[in-house]
Amino acid sequence: MKIGILGGGQLARMIALAGIPLGARFVVLDPSADAGATECADLVQGQYDDTAALDALAAQVDVVTYEFENVPQASARYLAQKVPVYPAADVLEVAQDRLNEKTLFNQLGIETPPFAPVSSLAELEAAVASIGLPAVLKTRTQGYDGKGQAVIKTADQLAEAWQSIGEVPAILEGFIQFDREVSMIAARNLNGDIRFYPVSENDHAGGILRVARARAGDPITPLAQDYTAKLMEHLNYVGVIAVEYFQRGDQLLANEFAPRVHNSGHWTIEGAECSQFENHVRAVANLPLGSTDPVGFGAMVNLIGDLPSADQILAIAHCHAHFYGKDPRPGRKVAHIGIRANTEAERESAITAANQLPGAKT
Amino acid sequence: MKIGILGGGQLARMIALAGIPLGARFVVLDPSADAGATECADLVQGQYDDTAALDALAAQVDVVTYEFENVPQASARYLAQKVPVYPAADVLEVAQDRLNEKTLFNQLGIETPPFAPVSSLAELEAAVASIGLPAVLKTRTQGYDGKGQAVIKTADQLAEAWQSIGEVPAILEGFIQFDREVSMIAARNLNGDIRFYPVSENDHAGGILRVARARAGDPITPLAQDYTAKLMEHLNYVGVIAVEYFQRGDQLLANEFAPRVHNSGHWTIEGAECSQFENHVRAVANLPLGSTDPVGFGAMVNLIGDLPSADQILAIAHCHAHFYGKDPRPGRKVAHIGIRANTEAERESAITAANQLPGAKT
Repeated sequence: MKIGILGGGQLARMIALAGIPLGARFVVLDPSADAGATECADLVQGQYDDTAALDALAAQVDVVTYEFENVPQASARYLAQKVPVYPAADVLEVAQDRLNEKTLFNQLGIETPPFAPVSSLAELEAAVASIGLPAVLKTRTQGYDGKGQAVIKTADQLAEAWQSIGEVPAILEGFIQFDREVSMIAARNLNGDIRFYPVSENDHAGGILRVARARAGDPITPLAQDYTAKLMEHLNYVGVIAVEYFQRGDQLLANEFAPRVHNSGHWTIEGAECSQFENHVRAVANLPLGSTDPVGFGAMVNLIGDLPSADQILAIAHCHAHFYGKDPRPGRKVAHIGIRANTEAERESAITAANQLPGAKT
Repeated sequence: MKIGILGGGQLARMIALAGIPLGARFVVLDPSADAGATECADLVQGQYDDTAALDALAAQVDVVTYEFENVPQASARYLAQKVPVYPAADVLEVAQDRLNEKTLFNQLGIETPPFAPVSSLAELEAAVASIGLPAVLKTRTQGYDGKGQAVIKTADQLAEAWQSIGEVPAILEGFIQFDREVSMIAARNLNGDIRFYPVSENDHAGGILRVARARAGDPITPLAQDYTAKLMEHLNYVGVIAVEYFQRGDQLLANEFAPRVHNSGHWTIEGAECSQFENHVRAVANLPLGSTDPVGFGAMVNLIGDLPSADQILAIAHCHAHFYGKDPRPGRKVAHIGIRANTEAERESAITAANQLPGAKT
């Protein structure tokens, strides 16, 4: 089984590391010659809309998947004429557009923050009148990690916000108060089997995920599973998905989903029977899904813009190092620390120590 | 950190898979163009005594290690003039020769089966007179997995045995009754820190390891640790070592050691905090050693000469697939099944089911 991945960054790298023991081989398509996945995957160097590159990829592989959701839909559809593509290109059409995404959530009975489409300053004014302030204006497409967003607190900020996001099709979302953000990582295979990981509880700073903790047995689990299953089944989803929710009391409000393995699920490498990366390979290769049961208490600390040495990470009990083969640059995710402990107290001690390292939150 | 490995088979492959997340990169030297490790390591293709190939390897890496003990000592010594080599070439001088190995064990106070050197039929007769029958005649060098050995049950088999091993320098070992075979896998780094894994209990068939079980807390552990530490310290050992012992009552008789990661330690991938492969990388890269604590109940089932599909393996609860990228041939180790369960009963059920698969014991 040879698996093609659109994108050759750290997610592709971790997919390949998980899949090679299963007997899979990997080819990544990436514009960069030194993409991080190339240590464990062959490379087709090219742009994601380069037909010759897509042809070269398709000719070598049995199935194609992706490590990021901003793959051109046309490329996914083009590839799908030649080899199976999972998740299907239709999924990208929803995932790439915040308006489509939130509209689908509501159609499926999945609650969301209040939202309204915005394609002009006049529509922004109408949306604010309806939703109220504070609110967040987000581009419909291409935004991630807090980019392409503007928080609006007062009515005199509307024109500035509209300009700041580039006057492109957008969505206004009510700025809701929430208790915490959680994500549900789940895998679904061609047979329709679904496995849910324990809920991840996510701490952000500046719009970027910094720490994720596995919360096995969390009371919100049944609702998160129910919503996530509805979405996967509607999309006839194949692969690993990550759905982010704001929790308010016993209510979950869906924020967005990523049609891929996800940063908030990196703790599954050490902290679950079978990692999200391996389960993604199993799903797209049509193999039985692995157990998503927790193994002790897992967590993940992101290292962004700066790197400690491996020594510094490995000197902390319960910490595992995951470098991405990338040089540090401001704002760039360059590594993460995987944590697995037998008690919650040991996990929290490890997180506290990890958070002191260069690249971590503090 | 770039690490060179002499040998590009499954052990090198699993070392590289464990080391890439630590930020290490790998180059293997192997005679074969399609060595199994090349999916996650660069290749220098060449014989192990090819000076040009050794030069090419040394020029690319910061440190060299090996995945098998029959590396030519001269090659290890040649490389050591250019880059650090761990374990040191001196270790090979002991590990490659059963007589040196057993003599050293006894020097260090480590018990062994009775043995005597044999370099002629006359010496074989004298050795049999001293040790008694049954006994095993083994070549001093190059034997593994039961090859280069002849069991002698009666005095009229001496000439035949001597011929069958090729009339080369040999060792006669008393054929002892033992309760079980165990191995101790341990890691030692440049600082002299040592970490011991739980004892592995090994089931063989036809001289080849078929199943290994982690036996955390086994009463024989302190003796196995004591012996293994004496050996590592005497050798100023850096890396992972595997020492095989026959157990008879509360006595351990050292059989041999392998200066490398070992088949009986493959269960550590799922069944220990930090696998033998990662700890070998950490040791040779001079990083802090990882915890060798067990995570539940680990085991390993070898697949030899035949392969089940990934489906068949993954359909069994608690089983993980590790293919080596090799085509099946009679007697060839082509994959193993890693098992990790929360109870001993679940582990045993998984072993029983795994043993039904093509390539397993039954």
